[in-house]
Amino acid sequence: MNDCSFDIPLQVKEEGLYRRPLPKGLIAFSSVEGRAVFQQALLQGNMANYFPLIEQFTTQAEPAFCGISSLVMVLNALEIDPGRVWKGPWRWFDENLTDCCDQIPQIKKVGVSFHQLTRLARCNGLKVDAYFHSETELGLFRQQLADVARTSSGKHMIVSYSRSGLEQTGGGHFSPIGAYHAERDLVLILDVARFKYPPYWVSVTSLWQAMAEKDSLTDRSRGYFLCEKLV
Amino acid sequence: MNDCSFDIPLQVKEEGLYRRPLPKGLIAFSSVEGRAVFQQALLQGNMANYFPLIEQFTTQAEPAFCGISSLVMVLNALEIDPGRVWKGPWRWFDENLTDCCDQIPQIKKVGVSFHQLTRLARCNGLKVDAYFHSETELGLFRQQLADVARTSSGKHMIVSYSRSGLEQTGGGHFSPIGAYHAERDLVLILDVARFKYPPYWVSVTSLWQAMAEKDSLTDRSRGYFLCEKLV
Repeated sequence: MNDCSFDIPLQVKEEGLYRRPLPKGLIAFSSVEGRAVFQQALLQGNMANYFPLIEQFTTQAEPAFCGISSLVMVLNALEIDPGRVWKGPWRWFDENLTDCCDQIPQIKKVGVSFHQLTRLARCNGLKVDAYFHSETELGLFRQQLADVARTSSGKHMIVSYSRSGLEQTGGGHFSPIGAYHAERDLVLILDVARFKYPPYWVSVTSLWQAMAEKDSLTDRSRGYFLCEKLV
Repeated sequence: MNDCSFDIPLQVKEEGLYRRPLPKGLIAFSSVEGRAVFQQALLQGNMANYFPLIEQFTTQAEPAFCGISSLVMVLNALEIDPGRVWKGPWRWFDENLTDCCDQIPQIKKVGVSFHQLTRLARCNGLKVDAYFHSETELGLFRQQLADVARTSSGKHMIVSYSRSGLEQTGGGHFSPIGAYHAERDLVLILDVARFKYPPYWVSVTSLWQAMAEKDSLTDRSRGYFLCEKLV
């Protein structure tokens, strides 16, 4: 076994970006306010889905993998056995194992559409209930958020939204919902682009508006889908 | 953009293993008891380090990467800028970026020793305070756990223990500590082998005993180290 000959930090040239500042209006998970919101939501019983989901919180493995990394979190949180070996002797979902028909190289380049991700979710063993923003309404969305967060329904929600709608940099994005704070009408987004933003609480109405923007590739609004284990 | 032609779960042959049952005496994070312990520890103010650390919870990228994946969690939780690009334009730690002198291929085969991991932590910009089990005592260990969990010290702890000491399968293992429950004397281990075990609460004395066993490669006991940002 080699041992390292450097005991001091490496001196390196800095290129690229180290994260982005979280826009105002979003509450960082680990901030003083974020911790208070968390504790309140927990005591309100609005974090049923948080526990299995946070166990699987992950960084999207590639810059265009937000969709399939969100899917990986939900698949592992629901303890779906991929039926194929990941590494060593272990069956476990990573992004590559979500593939159903050799789409990964293309997804790596351009990401996935909302519809494409729901199909990948289905072919990996999930029951999916999908809603384009244009086909649903805010009241139903809020009710579904509360249902996911409040009960042990075994459901998780993945949202597809426009980053610009939350004053963030970047285009369309997917991430799972970690919790709901009913009184303040906030949801916890477990943003899989952890190299860019921390997890944050956002108002349900802001998120709703950020889902309304059209995906230029498909010319359809964004939306959300509920996933659960097939029985 | 391709779309998937399968809307039904793939039928595949099952080989390998899907997780391991958590041994008795360990409390699964998402179990009813685990949630109660979590809430108590939170209300006791014993989860100061939990928030930034859980934001970075990760699955070890390779079966022998438990040490450097634990280190990646702490480096990202402490917002250490690697000064080098990970992917796209982003500077961010993954396991490969922890390398200081081309050790990764060897680590992939055999893992790292306790001493080697502390040196990697130092060369990536952390202040490290390391303790072999044989050189410290239970009282000090407990006090340091409480300090990490109770205050906003900006410190995190990585433990090196023998899995067999916790009745788990496997040999030596590294993982970070997520929280401390003072009254019940339990710590939360954020086990990076998420394909094998969920995160769990374990008694401090059991963990202490599991650190006493010698690493056959180095013929030294295991131990723990505290990490913080260099100022």
